[in-house]
Formats: sequence, C-alpha cells, structure tokens
Amino acid sequence: MSESSGAPHSLLACGLPVPPPPLPAPDSLARARLLVAPSLDSCLVRELERIAGRGAEPLADVPPPSDAPLLCVGDALPDALRADRLLWFHSITAGSDRLLSGGLWPGQALLTRTVGRMGERMAQYVLGWMLAEAQSVPEFAEQHARAHWERLPSELVAGQTALIYGTGRIGAAVGRLLTACGVRTVGVARTTRYGPEPGTERAVPPGFDRVIGAAEDTGALGEARWVISTLPLTAATEGFFGADRFAAVRGATFLNVGRGATVDMGALETALRDGRVRRAVLDVLPTEPAAPEDPVWQLPRTVITSHSSGITTDEDIAVDFAACWADVTAGRRPGLTVDTGRGY
Amino acid sequence: MSESSGAPHSLLACGLPVPPPPLPAPDSLARARLLVAPSLDSCLVRELERIAGRGAEPLADVPPPSDAPLLCVGDALPDALRADRLLWFHSITAGSDRLLSGGLWPGQALLTRTVGRMGERMAQYVLGWMLAEAQSVPEFAEQHARAHWERLPSELVAGQTALIYGTGRIGAAVGRLLTACGVRTVGVARTTRYGPEPGTERAVPPGFDRVIGAAEDTGALGEARWVISTLPLTAATEGFFGADRFAAVRGATFLNVGRGATVDMGALETALRDGRVRRAVLDVLPTEPAAPEDPVWQLPRTVITSHSSGITTDEDIAVDFAACWADVTAGRRPGLTVDTGRGY
Repeated sequence: MSESSGAPHSLLACGLPVPPPPLPAPDSLARARLLVAPSLDSCLVRELERIAGRGAEPLADVPPPSDAPLLCVGDALPDALRADRLLWFHSITAGSDRLLSGGLWPGQALLTRTVGRMGERMAQYVLGWMLAEAQSVPEFAEQHARAHWERLPSELVAGQTALIYGTGRIGAAVGRLLTACGVRTVGVARTTRYGPEPGTERAVPPGFDRVIGAAEDTGALGEARWVISTLPLTAATEGFFGADRFAAVRGATFLNVGRGATVDMGALETALRDGRVRRAVLDVLPTEPAAPEDPVWQLPRTVITSHSSGITTDEDIAVDFAACWADVTAGRRPGLTVDTGRGY
Repeated sequence: MSESSGAPHSLLACGLPVPPPPLPAPDSLARARLLVAPSLDSCLVRELERIAGRGAEPLADVPPPSDAPLLCVGDALPDALRADRLLWFHSITAGSDRLLSGGLWPGQALLTRTVGRMGERMAQYVLGWMLAEAQSVPEFAEQHARAHWERLPSELVAGQTALIYGTGRIGAAVGRLLTACGVRTVGVARTTRYGPEPGTERAVPPGFDRVIGAAEDTGALGEARWVISTLPLTAATEGFFGADRFAAVRGATFLNVGRGATVDMGALETALRDGRVRRAVLDVLPTEPAAPEDPVWQLPRTVITSHSSGITTDEDIAVDFAACWADVTAGRRPGLTVDTGRGY
C-alpha cells in the first residue's frame, strides 16, 4: 500500500491496469494551448508561461474555441475538457483522487502531479504532533496561561514503535525522520514482498525497520505507540481504518495525513471513547472544511488541522512542472506521472 | 563553552584548573558507608545497595557517628559532610552547580553525576518545541477549541539555521537531531579551535555544520532562526545572554534548556517586546519554581516549562551509578566525573 506519492512498491488500489498513455508528441506539444487555473498567483503563471514558452489562458468550463491540443495546469478538470484534445494535465497537488473521480479520464492524456517537498513537510508535521504529545506541549501552554509551574511527565519517543501505513515516498520520508529520533518504524504495504530473508523480492526500503502486509497488521497495531496513515484514497482504501483495525489498537495515537475517507469516523469515535485509541490528530477529514456544527469537533482527545500537513507552495509547482516539462520534451516519461488506473 | 554534560571540548567556565582527586582507594571504598538522599524511591535504593554491596543509611545533616569514609548518592551535600571523610559523591542530576556553590568542595572527594539519556531527552524537547511553533500546534489547538477550520501557515525547519550554545554531549545531541530534520546547525564554543581547515586542532564535532567562538557570535545571532542554549551555570556564564547578545538577534526564537541564571531576564524581556526575539521557550529560570505572581509569566510570546527537558529517571541514576562503580572498582576514572574546578 502506498500514499499519494505513487511509489512503485505499493499497490493497494484495486484499479485495473491501464496502459500508460503515449507521451505528448513534440508537434502536438508545440501547438498546445496552455490553460491554467484562475486561482494561480500571477507570478506562478508567468513562471509556467516561461517554462512552456507560451502565454497562458484561464482554465474554464468552456474550452478555447479551436481544436488545438490542451496543456492544463490546475486542480480540477471541467467535463468539457475530458476530451481527446486534452494532451497533458499537470496537477498542482499531489492527490489526484478528485481529478480521477470527477469523470472518466481521457485515456490518451498524460497526468502529472506536484509533490514538491511534501514528504519532508508531512514528516515534520507527523513528528511535530508526536513530540507535542510526548512533551506535553498543550498541557504546558495551559499551565502557562494560569501562571502555574508544575512538573509534567514527558515521554521519550526513542524506543517506541510507529506503524506507518504507506511505504512510498511520503511514508518513507516519515519513517526516515522518525528513525532519526530513535523510533522503531514498521511500514505497512499491500504486499509482503519485502524482508531481509533470502528470496524476498525487495529489500526493506530506507526509513523502515521492517515492512508487513496490510492483511497481517493486527499484532503490530497492538504493539504500536503511534499509528500513522499516509494512504491515498482509492476504491481499496475507502474506510480502510474501520472497526476491525481500531479494535486491534492498544493505546496508540492515530495520525492521519493521507485522506479523510480512508477512516470510518464512527469506528474511530468508538475506539477513542473506549480508550483503545489514545489520541487522534486528523489533518484530513471525509468532508472538508469541517463546519462548526460538524460532530467531528466533539471527538474526545482529538485535534483537527486544516489539510495543511503537505501544502505545496508555488515554488513546488513551478519546480515540479519544470521537471516534467524537461522530461517530456526529452522524450522521457516523467517520474511524477500518475497511473490513472491505479489512482496515484 | 559547553553544557552540563561536561564534554571536554568546551571550556567557558573560568574556574582555575584543579588537579583531579585520586580515585577512592579500594580499602577506603570497602569500608565506606553508603548514604542516600531520603527522597529516593525505595526500589532505587535497593538497586544502589545491590551495586555497592552494602546497606544504605539516610543522607542527613548529621553524619553517622564513626570515622568511616562516606559514599553518598543525592542532590545536595550538607555542610557537615564537606569533610575529609567524604570519599565519593554521586549526583542524581547532571547539573552540579548547586553542589559546588553550596560550600567548599572537599578536594579529595570524587564527584560523579547522572547524565542518563539527558542529551536525547533535551534534544527531543528542543525539537518538539521548535516543531510545535513551526506547525502552529498551539494555534491549531485554539482553533479546535472553537470548532474553527482554517488553513494556518506552517514552516519547514529544513534549511533554517539553529545556533546552539554548548558543543558538549547535550549540545551535540541537539545538533544531531536537528541535522536529521535538515536544520543547519552552528555550535558556539568558548574557543574556535574547530574547523575544517588544515592546522585547526580538532574536527568539527558531529551534529554541527560549523562551530564558532562565543566572542564572534554577533553575525550568527542575526542569521539564526533558532537560538538554543545548553549552557551550564558557572561564574563565566552568569548573565551570558544579556543586552548585547539579544540586540544582535533578528527574529529568532530563544530556547533555554541550560540554566536560568545564564539569562539576563530584563534584557530578554526588552528583546521580546521590541520583536527581536520572536518567541521564548524557557525550561529553566533564575528562580524555580516560578510563583504565580512572578513577572516571568507576563513575558510576551513565551512558554515556561518546569525544568523538565532533561529529567533523569531512577533507571538513569542506577545505570550511571553502576557504570561509575564499575570504573572506580576497576581503577578507571569514570567518564561521568565532574571537574569540580571547571564546574561541569
């Protein structure tokens, strides 16, 4: 299993294999019109224009009145553009579930995405919230507010175990950072083709002390102090964290930086109320943003953040688009290509 | 300069060189009475008795009525025991300023101390509070309390610069952990006998990208995003962070895990009020514990914690005392020996 980074190791999604689209032909790319989401900052648009060597037009519900191929940069694809004219879409975010679930993906169109420094950012988010709990940051802030000096327990995360769902680029970035803090890291992948034993197909990827399969995670859930999800949303991961998994947890804190709909929120609530889940830190929710009346705010011992763990900056978008452009114009398949069948 | 870990590199303290005391002679050690602080947990006392092979008596203001040598384990030395009879004192904490400032140290007595996993603990404390700020942990907690979902900025500490005062064991532990997060680390030592250049006396210690001298830190203070002190309290470090140093800061957050009296609190307050110091995280204060009416609680953008960053556990005390015991009985000087002239 993997997260939205699209590492090749991890194949939880159940989409059928889709042959990769051909790379945009040089003559088509030369003729293509550049459409960019109207929300993009003007400095970023100028940089995209510079990279593509042409002026940009707004990416709108109505395509430009010509039959020129289209090169789009944005986060949503209007139905009118899900057509043969679409040559290449570069997503300004890493997650592509909204692009792929919004309608049929035109099979010939290349889909690339922005990852930026997302792995590094998500890893620092995860470690930051782990250490905030271990160091009693909220409790000290509360004591400070009432001018109260009292020793509070702190926990050394070194020696504790973190179970990290997703062993791709982001999961591995989380694993590497936690390893540097002395945390024991166990990756959870769809397959168990990892291992130090002779004959296993691949070495355990860096950042993980070991990797187990998603079907054999019950024992590991019971031993973990931290359960961290970096999973993408696919047909196979919807509701993945349900009653069965939460029933196996024994006091771990649950952190979700993947996608909100991978969690059965009712099952999480039950596990929080009966204490099996110690705390929850949710950067993602099934419905975002959460309205003030959303019951999710009432979950015990939970902090909700605003889908901010893996923000992509304008610089990330320009850097990753430039890298994809360099690959495509050199006839190479970009490393940031999305497998539209697999979903990440 | 160094912190209370007593690494050999760092020599800010101005005490005169004191010849190390002789190791306790085997026959003296065999005859010594074991005195332990009454505050120690009974399980720990039993472990100390096991290590030393004798029963323990309480460490009190009145020494036992005999002239037997004394082996003490505690955190304070009554005046009546500052005498020739004192063979060896093992401190249950790392800082020895209170032991050494409480009266003249009997020159022949060995002083050892407990460091435990203090470097690791302090490093996780420092990183925890850095990431809490970078990830807006208090602000998200506040938003959560009013069921408000809103994007907040987060900062990637990777690429930022941390100035770490003290290049000994604890400073280096902080440096190593920050390096793992991509932070550029500059150590500040008393001397500048470090450097990659040929002819410099020592290599830059692990955990630091470079090391500068305390007399040349003005420019580095202006470039740092984080200023971290691990300094011990000695005659040379009292009020070390005063108006001149804070005047050189340009927006850094100041974290103190060393000793409170190394900071001129009035100068810190001025720098916080004029914005040169962005925030302060103070685990140590000139006067601890801080009473509710102490003006320190009114410092702007400051969090005070309760001298908890480098707690030593009973296990730490037992492990470090056992290591010292093994050294002394084998005729080796313990690595945890305090240089009573230098003060750490």
